Amino acid sequence: MKPVETRQLLEAMAHLEIEDLNCATIRQIAALAGMLEDVSGEQFVHLELGNPGLAAELQGIDAHCKALRSGISNQYPNAAGIPQLKKAGSRFLKAFLDIDVPEHGIVPTVGSMQGSFTLMLLLSQRLAGKDTMLFIDPGFPAQHHQAKILGLKSVSFDLYEYRGEKLRDKLESILSAGNITGMIYSNPNNPAWTNLTQEELRIIGEMATKYDAIVLEDLAYMGMDFRTDLSVPFQPPYIPTVAKYTDNYVLLVSASKIFSYAGERIAMVCMSPEVCNRHYEFFAKFYDMPSFGDAYVFGVLYCASSGVSHSAQYAMAAMLNAAADGELNFVGHCREYGRRAHRAKEIFKRHGFHLAYAHDGEHPISDGFFFTIGYDDIDGEPLARELLRYGIATIPLKSTGSDQKGVRVTVSRLCDDPTFDALDQRLAAFDADHKTK
Amino acid sequence: MKPVETRQLLEAMAHLEIEDLNCATIRQIAALAGMLEDVSGEQFVHLELGNPGLAAELQGIDAHCKALRSGISNQYPNAAGIPQLKKAGSRFLKAFLDIDVPEHGIVPTVGSMQGSFTLMLLLSQRLAGKDTMLFIDPGFPAQHHQAKILGLKSVSFDLYEYRGEKLRDKLESILSAGNITGMIYSNPNNPAWTNLTQEELRIIGEMATKYDAIVLEDLAYMGMDFRTDLSVPFQPPYIPTVAKYTDNYVLLVSASKIFSYAGERIAMVCMSPEVCNRHYEFFAKFYDMPSFGDAYVFGVLYCASSGVSHSAQYAMAAMLNAAADGELNFVGHCREYGRRAHRAKEIFKRHGFHLAYAHDGEHPISDGFFFTIGYDDIDGEPLARELLRYGIATIPLKSTGSDQKGVRVTVSRLCDDPTFDALDQRLAAFDADHKTK
Repeated sequence: MKPVETRQLLEAMAHLEIEDLNCATIRQIAALAGMLEDVSGEQFVHLELGNPGLAAELQGIDAHCKALRSGISNQYPNAAGIPQLKKAGSRFLKAFLDIDVPEHGIVPTVGSMQGSFTLMLLLSQRLAGKDTMLFIDPGFPAQHHQAKILGLKSVSFDLYEYRGEKLRDKLESILSAGNITGMIYSNPNNPAWTNLTQEELRIIGEMATKYDAIVLEDLAYMGMDFRTDLSVPFQPPYIPTVAKYTDNYVLLVSASKIFSYAGERIAMVCMSPEVCNRHYEFFAKFYDMPSFGDAYVFGVLYCASSGVSHSAQYAMAAMLNAAADGELNFVGHCREYGRRAHRAKEIFKRHGFHLAYAHDGEHPISDGFFFTIGYDDIDGEPLARELLRYGIATIPLKSTGSDQKGVRVTVSRLCDDPTFDALDQRLAAFDADHKTK
Repeated sequence: MKPVETRQLLEAMAHLEIEDLNCATIRQIAALAGMLEDVSGEQFVHLELGNPGLAAELQGIDAHCKALRSGISNQYPNAAGIPQLKKAGSRFLKAFLDIDVPEHGIVPTVGSMQGSFTLMLLLSQRLAGKDTMLFIDPGFPAQHHQAKILGLKSVSFDLYEYRGEKLRDKLESILSAGNITGMIYSNPNNPAWTNLTQEELRIIGEMATKYDAIVLEDLAYMGMDFRTDLSVPFQPPYIPTVAKYTDNYVLLVSASKIFSYAGERIAMVCMSPEVCNRHYEFFAKFYDMPSFGDAYVFGVLYCASSGVSHSAQYAMAAMLNAAADGELNFVGHCREYGRRAHRAKEIFKRHGFHLAYAHDGEHPISDGFFFTIGYDDIDGEPLARELLRYGIATIPLKSTGSDQKGVRVTVSRLCDDPTFDALDQRLAAFDADHKTK
C-alpha cells in the first residue's frame, strides 16, 4: 500500500479529537485505524486490540446453552457464585498453580475488569491511611483509570529497570511509606510479555507480607509462558504465582483469554483464606460485615451488578473442570499465539525493529499474546503514528505506564498468511523510508 | 405448623449475627428463614425474595443459544451495546412508552443494579456542589447502599405523606437547595406497588427541569399496573413515564422481571438525547470526553465490567423485538403476579391484616409483584419477627425507607395451592394468637 499522507493522518486524528496517541484509549486508536482504512482504501494490519483470536472453547458453549435450556435464567445467581463454579475454580487452581484456595474464596466477577474495579474499592476502605495502589508497570491502562475513578491515589514504576534483586529495594522504598493498600500487576505481562521470575515473585510476596499490601495478581494470560510446558494438570512444572510466597494475595483468573471467552464477561476473584477471612473494623461498621470476603461479595459485588450471568457461571465451571480433567488443553490451544508472535517478531526484526522488553533475568522472553517493539530511538507516540501511515495499528508503550520507547503489538488478529505478508511488505516499506534518514 | 419459639428465633438471629431485621439484607432474612426451616422441620412460605416466579421468556433463551453457537463469545462486546440491541431498545420504548430515545442513548448494563451504580458515580461528578441523591422512598434498599459506597450524600422521604399536589411542595423544598444531582424511584413502586399518577409524574418532571436534577426512573416492573391494559405495542394507553414531562431523564429497563431473565443480568440504561449529549467541563478534563453519554460508556461502564455479556445482548434484543412485534406479551405473562397478589391479599385481609400502602390518588392500588401489609399497630420489625415464627418470611418496611408500620410481601414464590393453603392456615393461627392480646 501507499503510505497515508501525514496530513490525512492528522485530519483523522482531529476528527476523532485525538491530540496525542499516548492519551488515546485502545478503542480510539482502533477507530482511527478504521477511519484511515477508508481514507487509504486498504485493510490495516490490526495489532492494537487484544480480542482473542481463537474460537471460544466448545465445552463452555455447550455448558452455557445447556444451562440456559435447564431453566436457571429466571433466577438471580448467588452473588458469591454457584457452588459448581466455586468448586471447579478451587480445583483448577490446585491443578495448574498447585495452591489451595478454598471454595469460599472463589467468587465470579463480570470479567477481571469488574474484579479489579471492585477490589480496589474495598482496598481503598480497609485501613485508614492505606489509600494508595501500587502499579507494577507496564500494565493494562484501564486499571490505572479504575483507581482514578474510585478516587484512589496511585504510584507506579516501570519494571524494566528493576528486574531481579533490584526489585526488593524498589518495593521497599515505596512500601515502607505505609500508605500502599494493594499492588497490581499482570503476569505474563500485558504489554511487555515479560514473566516475573520465581525470585521476583518471592520478593513481591515477602514485601506484601512485610508491609501488609494485598497483591492483586492478574493472571489473564496464565500458562502462556511457552518456554515451559505448563499444560499438564496436577503435575509440575506449575504456573508461577505470588501465592507461593505470601498469604496476602488475590488472584484474578479470567476466562477471556485462556478460554477465548471474552464476550461472555466472566472471571474469578480468588482470595487467599487470610485475605478472605480477615476482619476489619471499618467493614463491620460500614457493611455490617467484618470480613473482607463478606464485605466484598455482599457489600460491594452485590451492589455493582447483583452477581454474574447465571448461565455463564456454568460455562466457566465446565471449562475449568475440563481443563483440570486434562480434556481441555487451554495452554496448548493458546500456543497458537506463541507461533504467531514468533513469526511476527522475525518479520519486525528483519526490517530493523528490536524488542523493547527482551529478557526475563538471563533468558529471552517467551513468545505469546503481546510483544513490544522499538525502531531506532523513536519515541512510542511518533512510532505508532508512522506505523499507522503504513497501515499498521499499534499502541504506544507510554500509555501502559512504560518508560521505554516503543509500541505494543498483539498477535491475536494475525491469523493468516495474507495478513503476515501485508505486515512484511509494509514494514519493508517503512524501513526503506526511515533507515536512510 | 407449630410456631417456632421466640427463644429459637433469637438463637438463629444471633447465629447469623442479625440484631435487627431492619438492618438485615434480604438475603440475610432468607438465610434466617432457611435456618428456621431446619429448626421447625417445616417449609416456610417465602415472601421475602423477589426472584421471578415465571419461566424465562423462550424468545430470549433461543436467541441467547443461537448467539453462543454463532461464535461471538470470543469477541469483547462493544461497551456501548451491539447495534441490534440499541435499535430494539429504542423501538421498544416507542412501542410501549410512546417516547423517542435514539439508539445512541440506549446502553446495556449488567442488570439495572449496574445501571444505577454507575450512573450515580457519574452524577456525583458532573457539577460541583451537586453531590446528593434524592430517593423518593420507599424503594430498593440496595440503591441507598450504592450511594453510600460511592460516597454520595443522600436525602429521602416517604411518598406516603406526599401524594398528589403535596409532592410539588415537598420536592421544591428539597430541590431548591441546589445540591441534588439526581433523583431515583421505581414505578410501579418496590415495595409499595403504588403507581405515580400522571399528575405526580408531571410534578417530578417539572421539578427535575427547574432544578437540573436528572431523574433515574427505575422501570423494573413496567407495564405491571394491571388496572389498565398496557400490553398492546404502538397503541395507547402507554406505560406512564416521567419522560413525557422532562428531558432530564434516564430510564432503567431491566429484563429481570418483565422477561423473567434475572439470572442473565442484563438491562438497558436509556438516556434522553439532552442527558446523553450534554457536555460537562469536568468530564472533558477527567475522562477526555465532554459528553455525559461518552463519559458514561467509555469512562465508567468500560471500567466497571468492559460491557455486558455478548450473547445476552442478542437475547435481550430478541425479546424487545418480539414484544414490540406483539409476539411476546410480557404484560400478559406478568399478569400472573396480579392474580397471585389478589388471592394473597384476600387471605391476609381475612386474617386481620391491612394494606400499608393502599391507594394511588382516589384509586386502590394495583395487584402485582409486591404489596405491603400491617397488623394492628405493630411495627414492621416485630411483625416480621412474629411472622417468621409462624413460618412466613417477609421484610420490614423500614428497610425500604418507609415510615409506615408493616412488612413487604412478594408473591413471586406463591406459585401453587399448597403454598396458598399454608399461608392461609399460618395467618389464621397468627391472628388467633395475636388478636386476643
